[in-house]
Amino acid sequence: MRTVDLITKKRDGGELTEQEINSLIRGYTDGSIPDYQMSAMAMAIFFRGMTPTERANLTMAMVHSGDTIDLSGISGIKVDKHSTGGVGDTTTLVLAPLVASIGVPVAKMSGRGLGHTGGTIDKLEAVPGFHVEIDNETFIDLVNRNGLAVIGQSENLTPADKKLYGLRDVTGTVNSIPLIASSIMSKKIASGADAIVLDVKTGDGAFMKEMSEAEELASCMVDIGNRVGRRTVAVLSDMSQPLGNAIGNALEVKEAIDTLRGVGPEDLTELCLTLGSHMAVLAGVASSKEEARDLLEQSIASGSALDKFKAFLTAQGGDASLVDEPERLVTAKYRIEVPAKEEGFVAAIAAERIGLAAMMLGAGRATKESQIDLAVGIVLHKKIGDRVQLGESIATIHANSNSNDEALAKIYESIEIRPQPVAPPALIVGEIK
Amino acid sequence: MRTVDLITKKRDGGELTEQEINSLIRGYTDGSIPDYQMSAMAMAIFFRGMTPTERANLTMAMVHSGDTIDLSGISGIKVDKHSTGGVGDTTTLVLAPLVASIGVPVAKMSGRGLGHTGGTIDKLEAVPGFHVEIDNETFIDLVNRNGLAVIGQSENLTPADKKLYGLRDVTGTVNSIPLIASSIMSKKIASGADAIVLDVKTGDGAFMKEMSEAEELASCMVDIGNRVGRRTVAVLSDMSQPLGNAIGNALEVKEAIDTLRGVGPEDLTELCLTLGSHMAVLAGVASSKEEARDLLEQSIASGSALDKFKAFLTAQGGDASLVDEPERLVTAKYRIEVPAKEEGFVAAIAAERIGLAAMMLGAGRATKESQIDLAVGIVLHKKIGDRVQLGESIATIHANSNSNDEALAKIYESIEIRPQPVAPPALIVGEIK
Repeated sequence: MRTVDLITKKRDGGELTEQEINSLIRGYTDGSIPDYQMSAMAMAIFFRGMTPTERANLTMAMVHSGDTIDLSGISGIKVDKHSTGGVGDTTTLVLAPLVASIGVPVAKMSGRGLGHTGGTIDKLEAVPGFHVEIDNETFIDLVNRNGLAVIGQSENLTPADKKLYGLRDVTGTVNSIPLIASSIMSKKIASGADAIVLDVKTGDGAFMKEMSEAEELASCMVDIGNRVGRRTVAVLSDMSQPLGNAIGNALEVKEAIDTLRGVGPEDLTELCLTLGSHMAVLAGVASSKEEARDLLEQSIASGSALDKFKAFLTAQGGDASLVDEPERLVTAKYRIEVPAKEEGFVAAIAAERIGLAAMMLGAGRATKESQIDLAVGIVLHKKIGDRVQLGESIATIHANSNSNDEALAKIYESIEIRPQPVAPPALIVGEIK
Repeated sequence: MRTVDLITKKRDGGELTEQEINSLIRGYTDGSIPDYQMSAMAMAIFFRGMTPTERANLTMAMVHSGDTIDLSGISGIKVDKHSTGGVGDTTTLVLAPLVASIGVPVAKMSGRGLGHTGGTIDKLEAVPGFHVEIDNETFIDLVNRNGLAVIGQSENLTPADKKLYGLRDVTGTVNSIPLIASSIMSKKIASGADAIVLDVKTGDGAFMKEMSEAEELASCMVDIGNRVGRRTVAVLSDMSQPLGNAIGNALEVKEAIDTLRGVGPEDLTELCLTLGSHMAVLAGVASSKEEARDLLEQSIASGSALDKFKAFLTAQGGDASLVDEPERLVTAKYRIEVPAKEEGFVAAIAAERIGLAAMMLGAGRATKESQIDLAVGIVLHKKIGDRVQLGESIATIHANSNSNDEALAKIYESIEIRPQPVAPPALIVGEIK
């Protein structure tokens, strides 16, 4: 079948067969199908959607467009976690050692990525000596020995998705739920996951601002996972304000250490316990969420979770002594307080704007070539619902430049204070399996 | 504004401004906007449509993407005619000399084109010596002196449209009424038309098979024309069966001569009188359609129309004596009759299939490189509603090969004979101005 006929079929609401989707993705990956046909197809998919079968087939076609990671050398059920991304999301740093400490094998492939702060690998590099340049054999061996290892993303993982994502980005076809869902799921499956826990964020700081969209995306991904034999659960979590208090790389490492120690922010702790419980159940190390949660809480209380983090850092060259002396983490030259200009209750902390403020300080990457400043960022002292006095510090800016007026203005813009008490938003707003 | 933002705006149902459309078409023409963005835009337009203002702006942006023909050296209102194309459509060959003979200046830019038969220029080349390789000055001079001249299409006419059409053809975005309408109108306007008469075909042999689509396209083009200061009228005409009797290049020239002489097929004559009347009114040489029709009928009866055709051929190097001896036109080696296999009434002559049969004989071009055989084609002896006897010839195949079984089978396939009388279809099915 000619590509134009496939485009026309989709445009007119038809269902593409498995063979048609395979030949489309194969042709696009090898360059025999040009970008201009693929972008028309993506726009047709934007308008027409995809059936559940089409989404599953698209996902697997992208999985098979490049290398797939073979984790069969690791005993146990490998459960991966994916978050759709938000502001101040330190979850992976906490969750990986936490679930590993109760016996869930964590073989994590991670990236750097663009955004308000760096990716998991950037954050971990705030620990001197830590690196992810390990070969596959070492990676698998480390997971078998320690229960946990992190490796950099393979170059040839889902090349079709990489190419298609780049194209969607410049052709107005990013916001298509089936395309987003198959993109995420294909990467997780190619990375070797047997089961997947998804953290789908909703609210101002999330990619999916509306709850209905977040639910649709979550259902779509869960359906794909289950159709292709990967048990998948999605948690819907609030991103109307940043998660935890820290936004910045070293600052988030410090926060992760606090959380593993049991003294982290309440919301971050809660999210890690919720996601971790699902991971433990899918991995078969607990028979119910309640049992899993008990195990995870005990692990924090006993120090096992923190020990697992240290062992993990050491195994990959990191200076784990830093975990006990987090004040030795890289720090910024300037600390600027952000005093409240009125008294009352915090009614909103526009997450995306706070994220932009962190980026202005140098915490994130605008382009692939940008250099990240690991030390800088923002620490919030108040969250939605908290009472503030006039002049009390709402947040601290950690900066390496002494001209931070723009970032300061952005922070003020993002925080709304009202005279009346405000109820804090619920953190976990849904679950789909 | 970035191109991706324009795509997203259209995708979400927004209206593009004149400036946005201009920068889109300018960027696409000069190559700074790549095909993959334009195809996504075209697909978004397919789904979202365009407002009347957008369509007019797109048309004028495409007009200004290349050369525009300046016909101001020709006195009078220059009215151009365009047909959306069908099978056996000999209209231009008749209409141009016919309206010129009553004083409508005809400065026709014509092409070769792909299709079941050649374009107007191919057909005219059946007259030995005739050529369209004349310079602009000669072209304008000939129109001023004879009232009629035909020139080949300028290379750099609406390059944006040429490029966009090629892209739409391979990205499933041909069938978008605003894109079709602006494509047609931009070419007519760039060719220098002051006013335009459109012949929008509907039925099996037409691009728009459904009457409702044909009406929508016609309204859309009339609206564009009137918005940009070109008075435009559309006639909706039936293409459920071929127009006239001849399908083939030299065969259609012979049919045009018959029609100019007043002995042509009824439907072709009627369509030429209808379209010609509108042209005469728009050109201001008649004050009503009725008056125009009288003038045209008189011109045929008096021989002025035929004389105009001869003068036109002579002025462009053609052997006009052939008009009086059409038997000297190039003829095919073989004539094969197509006898009726049953008796009754002709209920259908599937125009598209008859066109394919003509193409199999060599009358048309499948690709730009194909050679046309001017002599071959099909002449129908029966039209819908006609009575046929068993064994009576329904059509004659004119062929230069003696193996024509495939074409013969296609003709039989396309003709349906029923025992009950059948009403012939109306030729003129609507008018939009």
